[in-house]
Amino acid sequence: MTRRELLTSLSVLAGSRAACAGPPLEISATRLRRQIESLSLYGRPAGGNFPDGVSRIGYSDADIAGRKYLLSLVAEARLKARIDAAGNIFVRAAGQDAALSPVLFGSHIDSVPSGGNFDGDLGSLAAIEILRVLGENGIVTRRPLEAAVWSCEEASFHGNALNGSRAAAGKLRPGELDGVSRGLTLAESMRRIGGDPARLDETQLRGGAFHAYLELHIEQGGTMDKEATSIGIVEGIVALDHYDAVITGMANHAGTTPMADRQDALIAAAHLTLAVRELVTQEPGPQVGTVGRLDVEPNAPNVVPGRVRLGIDLRDLSSEKLRRLGAAIRARASAIGEQTRTQIVLTQTQHAEPALATPEVQAVIQRTAEHLKLSHRSLPSGAVHDAQVMAALGRMGMIFVPSVGGISHSPKELTAWEDCARGANVLLHSVLALAV
Amino acid sequence: MTRRELLTSLSVLAGSRAACAGPPLEISATRLRRQIESLSLYGRPAGGNFPDGVSRIGYSDADIAGRKYLLSLVAEARLKARIDAAGNIFVRAAGQDAALSPVLFGSHIDSVPSGGNFDGDLGSLAAIEILRVLGENGIVTRRPLEAAVWSCEEASFHGNALNGSRAAAGKLRPGELDGVSRGLTLAESMRRIGGDPARLDETQLRGGAFHAYLELHIEQGGTMDKEATSIGIVEGIVALDHYDAVITGMANHAGTTPMADRQDALIAAAHLTLAVRELVTQEPGPQVGTVGRLDVEPNAPNVVPGRVRLGIDLRDLSSEKLRRLGAAIRARASAIGEQTRTQIVLTQTQHAEPALATPEVQAVIQRTAEHLKLSHRSLPSGAVHDAQVMAALGRMGMIFVPSVGGISHSPKELTAWEDCARGANVLLHSVLALAV
Repeated sequence: MTRRELLTSLSVLAGSRAACAGPPLEISATRLRRQIESLSLYGRPAGGNFPDGVSRIGYSDADIAGRKYLLSLVAEARLKARIDAAGNIFVRAAGQDAALSPVLFGSHIDSVPSGGNFDGDLGSLAAIEILRVLGENGIVTRRPLEAAVWSCEEASFHGNALNGSRAAAGKLRPGELDGVSRGLTLAESMRRIGGDPARLDETQLRGGAFHAYLELHIEQGGTMDKEATSIGIVEGIVALDHYDAVITGMANHAGTTPMADRQDALIAAAHLTLAVRELVTQEPGPQVGTVGRLDVEPNAPNVVPGRVRLGIDLRDLSSEKLRRLGAAIRARASAIGEQTRTQIVLTQTQHAEPALATPEVQAVIQRTAEHLKLSHRSLPSGAVHDAQVMAALGRMGMIFVPSVGGISHSPKELTAWEDCARGANVLLHSVLALAV
Repeated sequence: MTRRELLTSLSVLAGSRAACAGPPLEISATRLRRQIESLSLYGRPAGGNFPDGVSRIGYSDADIAGRKYLLSLVAEARLKARIDAAGNIFVRAAGQDAALSPVLFGSHIDSVPSGGNFDGDLGSLAAIEILRVLGENGIVTRRPLEAAVWSCEEASFHGNALNGSRAAAGKLRPGELDGVSRGLTLAESMRRIGGDPARLDETQLRGGAFHAYLELHIEQGGTMDKEATSIGIVEGIVALDHYDAVITGMANHAGTTPMADRQDALIAAAHLTLAVRELVTQEPGPQVGTVGRLDVEPNAPNVVPGRVRLGIDLRDLSSEKLRRLGAAIRARASAIGEQTRTQIVLTQTQHAEPALATPEVQAVIQRTAEHLKLSHRSLPSGAVHDAQVMAALGRMGMIFVPSVGGISHSPKELTAWEDCARGANVLLHSVLALAV
């Protein structure tokens, strides 16, 4: 560590235009790459190579093996890990003023089935790497720093997501710990990874537990890749409304039922699917709407479909926009039902409020990117992240790096190594800027 | 029997306007009803009553029990049954001239899973009843008469249909007898019901094996019920073209993939589904087109669909019209693929030529209906029937009676008892008219 480097970070926070005499502190891009490659072994498909993706479902044997590898990196960095009641891993570096709340930053290392090697892994390994490089350089910030590796961010075998961060924040729903999957309750799954759910209450993070929460993550969309932007400054994690539509027509013989007499549930479903896209795209903005699941009954080649169930997923930073879209889709569904002589019942099954990133934290990330001479843009996150749970407790910011082709939750997920390093360096200097 | 009755039938054939002194010969509507109700016991759902439908899949235990009941009726009528190499049941009544080919008439008693109590059963039991009532009245026609109860008309566990009639006509495909389902080859299934598939060659029906084939069947569509027409004179069994479409887009995160960047296979599938209906209905005529099966991958609520497979079923009496429709759908699929940035591969998986009913046989049925003062109309059959196999061997005609609400292949299938009796009487007098 040099005073110069600390000053660099301070100048970022202050928005100072003072030129720096030397290059800014950097994480080890080589080490970060090697660790991402090594972590990919745990849950890698048989016979695969890097980056052939990973199936490291939360609480699985592969997850446990991956966590053990991550703990070995913590030890290598001469740091100490603490596992909380939910199985989250925390690694703390003391600050100059132990009375101050820490800057918290991290991500997760569990994956979806057949997921990729960057989603979560990058932000988790970068967090450990930042503590390591600071230690190697003898830098002690004013505030304590704490890296967090949240357990089970993706939907687990239990079907719920953000388990570790929600458990830490006291946001599990009643009965959720007792939900059974593959013979284990969620509480037992937490114990498998070293948690102690009976102690959740006493370890609960409360408002003020951290000075700010930062998370580095791949974009999982194609906007930055297409524009060749290095750094994404997340404005917030979008609100999500989910509707289930059940369309009831009349199943009948495909050969003997005249076209005019049909009550074809799939014709109605096709109209509704196209209507969702039309209504979502008819005003400008980043809002998205998807029919991803659609099931036909009886689904036989020679039977006019009698029933279709489909799911509608709507996301935007504005809950109000989602409400308007939902109402427009409901009105259209009613018209389609009349036109096709089917009954369409639309039920809202989910509503998640947006989690907005704190403007000051966004500003810190932006100044850091500018200082490091990296192209940047603001954008919403369409995916869920542990950061949205932390946003309910305190200041939050997220840093995105590009996903090649926008592909994610897929073995084809890819982020260029230079982008991984750029993101980690922006996280490093944002953390330093916030830790004063 | 009275000479008057025989004259009645002859007058029908000759189109004579001579008034008849007495009422025409009739089947026993009471007996026919009782037998349809009794046959429904074999394969009835547990705890069900008549008409709660039936699952009497070809070659199943329920099918074997139903055939045993039918054979008991044959014995009751003092007739003899013969089971051919495919397990078809034939019941013959000698004619005055043994050298002449018989008038053949019948149907089937197997059902689809959760099928109805009239599809096949009506035509089979009416055929036996006709021989019985002729015997009771001492009527011996010039030509021999033969009732046929074809085995396994519906798609069996083996997945193929019209098995009995096709086997009798030498139309099984190579290897079809060796197809295995539920641990049995089709040959073994045929042996289960008393067939002897090794002898199929020697018992094969050839051209000239019958003077004409007649089949009484429920319409399975709603046209006659809606118009309150008693008798349908089938013009032919429609041609059928089946296409499989595989639509490949790009599966991606429903939250992070901007609307403009999507290659949503379900959006393309929705356009294609609506295009099939639009193209089929844009010219007048009875042609029908159906997308009955549609499978989405990965079919997750939060993933933009990457792949959809769907089936397109087209039917009309004209093969040429189906070819034109297929070409129009193919052109539209190509445009939809470009518009949605997906790849749509359309493969024709099935083509069945139409089986036209013989005009003279249609005329006999029409004159019979007029003689019996029953409303009638001509119409195509959109469903497959054993009659289409017989049409390749000789003259063929079919008589339809109304299906309430057009519902079929369903426990809700229903035909009024008066309509059952009317159809059986039209079959009786058409048989008599053809047997001179």
